[in-house]
Amino acid sequence: MAVPAEFDGLCVVLVAPRNPLNIGAAARALSNFGFHRLRVVNPYHVAFREARSAVGASALLASAEEYKNVAEAVADCALVVGTTALRRRELQHPVRRLEHGARLIRKQRASSRIALLFGSEKRGLSNHDLSYCHWLMRIPTREMHSSMNLGQAVAVCLYELVREAKTARPTEELQPATAGALERITAMLFDALGASGYVRSSGAASTHEKVRRLVRRLHIQAGDAELWLGMLRQIVWKLRSGEAAKGDRALGD
Amino acid sequence: MAVPAEFDGLCVVLVAPRNPLNIGAAARALSNFGFHRLRVVNPYHVAFREARSAVGASALLASAEEYKNVAEAVADCALVVGTTALRRRELQHPVRRLEHGARLIRKQRASSRIALLFGSEKRGLSNHDLSYCHWLMRIPTREMHSSMNLGQAVAVCLYELVREAKTARPTEELQPATAGALERITAMLFDALGASGYVRSSGAASTHEKVRRLVRRLHIQAGDAELWLGMLRQIVWKLRSGEAAKGDRALGD
Repeated sequence: MAVPAEFDGLCVVLVAPRNPLNIGAAARALSNFGFHRLRVVNPYHVAFREARSAVGASALLASAEEYKNVAEAVADCALVVGTTALRRRELQHPVRRLEHGARLIRKQRASSRIALLFGSEKRGLSNHDLSYCHWLMRIPTREMHSSMNLGQAVAVCLYELVREAKTARPTEELQPATAGALERITAMLFDALGASGYVRSSGAASTHEKVRRLVRRLHIQAGDAELWLGMLRQIVWKLRSGEAAKGDRALGD
Repeated sequence: MAVPAEFDGLCVVLVAPRNPLNIGAAARALSNFGFHRLRVVNPYHVAFREARSAVGASALLASAEEYKNVAEAVADCALVVGTTALRRRELQHPVRRLEHGARLIRKQRASSRIALLFGSEKRGLSNHDLSYCHWLMRIPTREMHSSMNLGQAVAVCLYELVREAKTARPTEELQPATAGALERITAMLFDALGASGYVRSSGAASTHEKVRRLVRRLHIQAGDAELWLGMLRQIVWKLRSGEAAKGDRALGD
């Protein structure tokens, strides 16, 4: 997937993150999904320094902007969306399921700078932080264990944003083998079954049909048909040469 | 979101994970999205012990099952899906974008046990691991930085699975054969190919993987598995008795 250039204006804002590993993981998710604006509000300083100096820390992390408070971090954004694990709070905000919220964000992404806020590992976003948000987005986790790891929450939200950003191209399903190829395979398999003594020649018609149906149920792909045929041909050849050897022996007795 | 009970049969399989934090993060994602079967193949033992004893380690992690190899970990599964960051490899498997793959998994979830494989942090799934898979699923990360953190990859995949899980419609699709049955068929076919001279014993490892993949590309149904196995068994027996006959003749000369 190419970088969705339309998301140039989206900023991921981590509010008061505590754990350097989570800051690093968030940066990695941005990079994975083609985002590049990371803002960090009032981080635990040791953590931020540690994350930046970690082995493999990205250019993205190095260029992360630091802000003293949420107000400054979102000042240039026309849409501010908070994330929450909670289903209900004393909710003064509309809460949208992630896939619905992402759709609204995608609609606005070309025209506006957008901030997507994630709270700290322990407490999430405070009511004060939420007061800067236009609305909230909720990842559909289960009620009994709704709170996600920060890096994972960022990854899931960004995935949902790019999920349909491009017109999804259906995978070209694999070509099935032709009926002719299937029939050659059927015939060769039937020969192998005959030569091995699995089927007797008498009453073989109904067995032949059974084998034919059995082969059709396999959904053999066009690209594999020759391979199967080659294997069976070798097996039949060997079975027959074994017979011949026995025949020789019988004659020699 | 309620626990999607229909995913009872889905096992997340971590193959050779190295980092306890990633094992813990994967377990947390399972719990967040209502899954509960975690299997770990050949983990770095210190890491596994550390993950289990971590503060807040879940019951889910405590009940994670440990396996020596992929074959054992997926033996009871009728669908085995690998995850990959790569767009192209010498890809012998169909690769589906996550949302398409997830749709197929949802269709089969009511009727079969399913394994979803994730490779190690460094190397992902090996070709040997992949040879046990029916097909692969790719998270649509960008080409320049496609490799995701393990815990984040698990979270994104499970999110996609439950994203539209609500209406669970069990398919009346036919039961696919289990991985264990497929492996028995693979082994017997390989014996037949060896006894017929189609494969030589030297350099057989990569051929064995090719045969394994070939068998996975077939849609062998549970009800047909015994039949195939019986045919192959007879063919192998006959091929070997042909060899024996020749051997006798050689002795007799």
